[in-house]
Amino acid sequence: MTSVHFEKVALIGIGLIGSSLARAMRENKLADTLVACARKEETRKTALDLGIVDEAFENPADAVRDADLVILCTPVSTYGPLAETFGKHLKAGAIVTDVGSVKQSVVNDVKPHLPDSVDFVPGHPIAGTEQSGPEAGFASLFVNRWCILTPTAEASDTALNRIRSLWEACGSMVEIMTPERHDKVLAVTSHLPHLIAYTIVGTATDLEEDDQADVIKFSASGFRDFTRIAASDPVMWRDVFLTNRDAVLEILQRFTEDLTALQRAIRRSEGDTLQDLFTRTREIRRGIVDAHQAGTFDPREPEVIEETTDKDVS
Amino acid sequence: MTSVHFEKVALIGIGLIGSSLARAMRENKLADTLVACARKEETRKTALDLGIVDEAFENPADAVRDADLVILCTPVSTYGPLAETFGKHLKAGAIVTDVGSVKQSVVNDVKPHLPDSVDFVPGHPIAGTEQSGPEAGFASLFVNRWCILTPTAEASDTALNRIRSLWEACGSMVEIMTPERHDKVLAVTSHLPHLIAYTIVGTATDLEEDDQADVIKFSASGFRDFTRIAASDPVMWRDVFLTNRDAVLEILQRFTEDLTALQRAIRRSEGDTLQDLFTRTREIRRGIVDAHQAGTFDPREPEVIEETTDKDVS
Repeated sequence: MTSVHFEKVALIGIGLIGSSLARAMRENKLADTLVACARKEETRKTALDLGIVDEAFENPADAVRDADLVILCTPVSTYGPLAETFGKHLKAGAIVTDVGSVKQSVVNDVKPHLPDSVDFVPGHPIAGTEQSGPEAGFASLFVNRWCILTPTAEASDTALNRIRSLWEACGSMVEIMTPERHDKVLAVTSHLPHLIAYTIVGTATDLEEDDQADVIKFSASGFRDFTRIAASDPVMWRDVFLTNRDAVLEILQRFTEDLTALQRAIRRSEGDTLQDLFTRTREIRRGIVDAHQAGTFDPREPEVIEETTDKDVS
Repeated sequence: MTSVHFEKVALIGIGLIGSSLARAMRENKLADTLVACARKEETRKTALDLGIVDEAFENPADAVRDADLVILCTPVSTYGPLAETFGKHLKAGAIVTDVGSVKQSVVNDVKPHLPDSVDFVPGHPIAGTEQSGPEAGFASLFVNRWCILTPTAEASDTALNRIRSLWEACGSMVEIMTPERHDKVLAVTSHLPHLIAYTIVGTATDLEEDDQADVIKFSASGFRDFTRIAASDPVMWRDVFLTNRDAVLEILQRFTEDLTALQRAIRRSEGDTLQDLFTRTREIRRGIVDAHQAGTFDPREPEVIEETTDKDVS
């Protein structure tokens, strides 16, 4: 691991991810000075009271002044206006990065506002909880988690290596790919699962009151796993679907076709079709468990699933 | 808790659930004699080697002889033929129950084969893991989990109370409802989530090889939760969808309509529609967390979800 150090780091947004990064950077002594930018006074006060940053500003232009690293930690729809506000106040030679869940739109929105003397290295840590706000963060959030970097062609190797080292110092494993590739992969692994989870939980909220009470009561039979995902931050996820629209609609289309085929198999009582699919899907799980055992996964993964009442006459 | 005791219990099927019940009954001294019925010699040998049953039979008629309790623990599609085979060998006054994930079809398939002198009290423990087979069971599987009983109108109160006490002695909380109600509630909380999880994992298995490798690598971003569910026993789940077809197709129809509306909102960039839904779904999660804190849920529920990279500028 390369040792990495910054004189002044500006965190634009200090919610779960921003405050976790602040804590991780403090703990690993990665920065001399840490400052935050937050719209609400209450958030700035909380961040200062928690002692995770040295200063907190309302205006992003004030926050980025003299910073050699600026990290965008707000919902991605705010990136463009923010970059427009602070772009011309950036120090020459500064690096700008982010933690957004989509990458192509981020490049499109932010890059035009940055001076040529600044390196832009977009990033996405695959880590989080369903909590929000500066109190919810913790330093170990990124340990053993992937962080994907999607550097622009103009970014220097030095800047890329410094951002890579930053994440490695926070405990992450780093992968480099193009923004297009990132958005395609995450549409499958993250955006579609969230969309489905939001939908199924939404379908349940439209049930009669009695039914809803029983759904909550017996949620351990599978439904509960979906509610966890569907409790994620609404604004962040709105932005994900609006900014990665094409990739999401493409994979959603495939999913819908597959679901329709399954619906047809159920209606026609085609047991073999169902059993074949249900057997195939076990393979993917095996691949994930193998990758996990190979040490490339978070060891905190729960081993026992809720509810499958697996029966076997064999 | 009423104390309950059986002279001889016959478990038809000794997989994850059957073997867990055997262990729980042994541990709590609920039966003098425990016997199992299994199709495969290997399974019978394993059950005997594990010491969880006293005898193991290939023929269900042999297993149920003199039993005062018979528990069906095989995939539900086998219930009818099994009941036909052992029905006339049941002891007068015996109780028959089961652990199947659907209840209406179970009543239809089993009841006609049982003599009038026998009480039928169908049941469904909401518990399980993704593992199968007699080695996978453990005595505490049912602790703090719901077990739903759907007694037929003809079943005596004594029989119902004995089955209720059996599950309570194994650590479960018991709820009584009609088979129709059970199948409707479980279609929402369990069958639809499993169908969706199988579909999304199936969609991923159809991707190009490179894409699939990345899906496995970055599965912690949401997808992994689905693979756990989609690794459940294929035969058991085939039977669930075939036997609870109408309730599953009904809720699936609602889900598909909701998903189509969401797809339309994404295509038209209707951010408010998305954010409204994503905010509503948090409520259901809150209800579940509250119920959990009220002590009606398994305390083992993992508190931290994987991957939502929640960002907050507030």
